[in-house]
Amino acid sequence: MAKAGASTRKENFASTKRHVTSYDVAQHAGVSQSAVSRCFKPGASVSKKMRARVMAAVEELGYTPNAIARGLITRRSNMVAVIVSNLNFYPEVVSELSARFTERGVHVLLFTLDHESDVSRTLQQVWQYQVDGVIAAAHLSPDEIATFVERDIPLVFYNRSYEDVQVCSVSCDQIEGERALINRLVEASRHRSFAIITGPADSVVSMQRTRGALERLRECGATEVLQVSGDYGYRSGCRAVQEILDRRGDMPDAIICANDVMAFGAMDELRYRLDYDVPGDVSVVGFDGVRAAAWASFDLATVVQPVESMAEAAVSMLMDRVDNPELPPEKRLFSGVLRNGSSIRG
Amino acid sequence: MAKAGASTRKENFASTKRHVTSYDVAQHAGVSQSAVSRCFKPGASVSKKMRARVMAAVEELGYTPNAIARGLITRRSNMVAVIVSNLNFYPEVVSELSARFTERGVHVLLFTLDHESDVSRTLQQVWQYQVDGVIAAAHLSPDEIATFVERDIPLVFYNRSYEDVQVCSVSCDQIEGERALINRLVEASRHRSFAIITGPADSVVSMQRTRGALERLRECGATEVLQVSGDYGYRSGCRAVQEILDRRGDMPDAIICANDVMAFGAMDELRYRLDYDVPGDVSVVGFDGVRAAAWASFDLATVVQPVESMAEAAVSMLMDRVDNPELPPEKRLFSGVLRNGSSIRG
Repeated sequence: MAKAGASTRKENFASTKRHVTSYDVAQHAGVSQSAVSRCFKPGASVSKKMRARVMAAVEELGYTPNAIARGLITRRSNMVAVIVSNLNFYPEVVSELSARFTERGVHVLLFTLDHESDVSRTLQQVWQYQVDGVIAAAHLSPDEIATFVERDIPLVFYNRSYEDVQVCSVSCDQIEGERALINRLVEASRHRSFAIITGPADSVVSMQRTRGALERLRECGATEVLQVSGDYGYRSGCRAVQEILDRRGDMPDAIICANDVMAFGAMDELRYRLDYDVPGDVSVVGFDGVRAAAWASFDLATVVQPVESMAEAAVSMLMDRVDNPELPPEKRLFSGVLRNGSSIRG
Repeated sequence: MAKAGASTRKENFASTKRHVTSYDVAQHAGVSQSAVSRCFKPGASVSKKMRARVMAAVEELGYTPNAIARGLITRRSNMVAVIVSNLNFYPEVVSELSARFTERGVHVLLFTLDHESDVSRTLQQVWQYQVDGVIAAAHLSPDEIATFVERDIPLVFYNRSYEDVQVCSVSCDQIEGERALINRLVEASRHRSFAIITGPADSVVSMQRTRGALERLRECGATEVLQVSGDYGYRSGCRAVQEILDRRGDMPDAIICANDVMAFGAMDELRYRLDYDVPGDVSVVGFDGVRAAAWASFDLATVVQPVESMAEAAVSMLMDRVDNPELPPEKRLFSGVLRNGSSIRG
């Protein structure tokens, strides 16, 4: 807290409605203006003594550096945009990204989309904020990706990968993860017939997971694989189980869900509405490793995405490119960890 | 998409590395610079014909208005800060707020805290971004609240209310909600003994909910109320049930949890580890109405916060004060909706 004299001075500044500038701070502390600005620049070299002197003046005058004005001079806004297609499925991801950017003195401008296809409208808004970089947990078209290159704005995809476009991405290996799940199912007893509940049609992640599961199932000689579609939500998992029952007349040995939340819906529908035993009658597997997968009600067999490692990789990959735009694109693919829940019969 | 000639012109601009300004657009379209800026100002009056003419030039030249530079002129950044104490418990809230600000052309700078007590460090960062306003789903001290007044930055609390400080807030009525839950429990048969699982010690919401429950229980003549503490997380709900068992030797008739997620932990611990029937042996109630409360595994009796109405109220309350800083502080208190789940025995 400022002392009495300082507080009066602060009030004087306030009452004359004059904005306190770094010049005022420099004058008051008897140092150069560049010394003041170094005290507010993350990583800039400044002696302890100098910092103490400047901070005393800052406190007395009630000075706040203007990050936006500084951004115009340094050509850095110290803001990044994070675009997520559905925050409700990614609270941990946004939380992790936000914490890691904050550690680096960078702030997160959050854009949430109702549908992946809304992204082009969002980009128009992103451009206006002159962000230093963008993390996208949403699908972009090659044309949209090209506009980042034109504008020299580093872009890192989170859990979206592109085979024919050179762009940075951090992903969980969806294919490998699904194959591990299928291997678990095939090793476990009596799994012969299968159904897959997919995510929404515009989700690339869902397509990859479904493709991974189908490929491995075919390799294992499974000929009977029914595919029904969901939207990643709990209710769609319930509805999909009903659809499987309608189309097959009974239940397959295992239901493979494109995410955990649909697996919860499927399990609840089987147990509480259709009176099937999970895993006695039907095994259920998911993907993601959300918190509720470990809850005793579900104890779901799933692939746990290493969210902390992936978030750290995405943030450092982006900031490296903000510092050095010449770095080549890079793809980092993290293996998920198989969670052996009791939703697969032994 | 731009036609061939236009695309060449865009490339010329790009190749000379000259930044396209609103002056260039005005020249190219043969209109005034103020007409160009009106086209980018939400709500500004501009004829259809004028807009078409300007937008054609914008498209041809590849112009993007600089929101940050505009912010320096208009003294508006068109950004607001949203401070949340734990994003994992509030994904719906942040999602709703973000969608509603986006509709208004305002962007969200997200700050997440690990603990409510980290807020003062976060405020130092918020000031640097010259945001137009702040929504705080975190507790601030009266001194911290006073700095918003000094800086003329509108502040709206989300689910935090203050009795002795004049400040805007949008809340769910925690006390009324808890009373309704207790009434439900008391009306239902054979509930005589109770335990309360509280949230973290620094959560004002948890304190209010606990106080509401205790007051109503006393009014109803319940003398036996054990209080144990949790941290809003699932595991803490499990642990709290163990602690209740250790301290009482058996289970009370009902367990009142300060949020839904701890109630899920309590239910799972009772059912799957301790072999109690919920609700046959023990009733469990929560608070919040998160999505999983409606899942068949839990079907939890709880108070559903009207998140959409509360988010809309918080956003419009804040933006009204950005437009007109003279508006007096206002508190809006929304009633929660009692969800009659099957976790209370009949």
